[in-house]
Amino acid sequence: MQIARVIGTVVATQKHRKFEGAKLLLVQPLTMDDKPRGPALLAVDALGAGVDEKVLVVMEGRAAGEALGRKFAPVDAAVVGIIDTVDISE
Amino acid sequence: MQIARVIGTVVATQKHRKFEGAKLLLVQPLTMDDKPRGPALLAVDALGAGVDEKVLVVMEGRAAGEALGRKFAPVDAAVVGIIDTVDISE
Amino acid sequence: MQIARVIGTVVATQKHRKFEGAKLLLVQPLTMDDKPRGPALLAVDALGAGVDEKVLVVMEGRAAGEALGRKFAPVDAAVVGIIDTVDISE
Amino acid sequence: MQIARVIGTVVATQKHRKFEGAKLLLVQPLTMDDKPRGPALLAVDALGAGVDEKVLVVMEGRAAGEALGRKFAPVDAAVVGIIDTVDISE
Amino acid sequence: MQIARVIGTVVATQKHRKFEGAKLLLVQPLTMDDKPRGPALLAVDALGAGVDEKVLVVMEGRAAGEALGRKFAPVDAAVVGIIDTVDISE
Repeated sequence: MQIARVIGTVVATQKHRKFEGAKLLLVQPLTMDDKPRGPALLAVDALGAGVDEKVLVVMEGRAAGEALGRKFAPVDAAVVGIIDTVDISE
Repeated sequence: MQIARVIGTVVATQKHRKFEGAKLLLVQPLTMDDKPRGPALLAVDALGAGVDEKVLVVMEGRAAGEALGRKFAPVDAAVVGIIDTVDISE
Repeated sequence: MQIARVIGTVVATQKHRKFEGAKLLLVQPLTMDDKPRGPALLAVDALGAGVDEKVLVVMEGRAAGEALGRKFAPVDAAVVGIIDTVDISE
Repeated sequence: MQIARVIGTVVATQKHRKFEGAKLLLVQPLTMDDKPRGPALLAVDALGAGVDEKVLVVMEGRAAGEALGRKFAPVDAAVVGIIDTVDISE
Repeated sequence: MQIARVIGTVVATQKHRKFEGAKLLLVQPLTMDDKPRGPALLAVDALGAGVDEKVLVVMEGRAAGEALGRKFAPVDAAVVGIIDTVDISE
């Protein structure tokens, strides 16, 4: 799983029927000191996360489909947690 | 999922029987400001997307097979949405 | 899926029993203008492709196993189409 | 699987119900001579690993879900072993 | 699948019960002219491969689990063949 920040939303009116009602978030993966890392990607929202929140993103199809609660949904990334704290040992 | 633009089509007469009738699109992943990012790839069309459209691409085998509506199809990428707008928070 | 060229074959007499009889091809992924891209990889042949042919390679375990027609075969890449033409829109 | 070191923990109070009770570890992949390699990532703890331990991390959704013992958990990485020794042949 | 050389072994006494008895190999992916390519990784041995042998490695969870003959084992890479020859067409 990766730590990312929600940086936007995407609207796609015409989409696969298994996506009906699913919210699509644009998330930016972060380094441990909260810098952007690599390209932003799209994830379905399984939790009601909002823009600017720091989230836990799962990046694998089966896992993301489960997160959405729709077993056979064609998704490959999902927001599955909202992060409170990250403790790094010194 | 990734944002990409449809940039072409591929014809493969001789193919695995589970692909019969499936349309193969050449899609170019994009950055958030619509620049090409990385190499183009092939995705099956689950939606009737046309050349030049900005689309939502799922990149994982199980998910892509579901998108095609053929559970055991040997595919690993599919177009599952046509993108209307991307809203990036400032 | 990716476009690749078959550049060789691999012989492995001692192998997992689910591979019995499967042909192993060495395939080189290509850019859109047919230049080699990244390292060559091994794919099972689900179609009877020959050396030098331009092929469609699926790169994911479940999908590749389906391609081989052996549900639980331990494979992660398979040749699933022989490419006739690639049309890139200008 | 990869060799990594546990470097921290992550707290996410609000998370997908399938994660209830699961411990989230921040793990840093290592090279063979124990240098950090690439970005740190999050993995669920299937074993009771502690900070600073050298662990075996599985990085794939189905495998990680199994590790957690919850078949349909939306996870994509898990700690599945604590490493005693690595023997590299000369 | 990838061509790799077995370069070592890993001992992890404390591990997920589905790994009991499985041998963990450290494998180094190779280029076509047998140079090391990218980082070494861990793979379960499904075949009895020894140090220094050139092997066929499958890198995907479902496939690797099948290779081990334990459907729900939390593994993501497995040695599934021992390579005799690689023929590259000129």
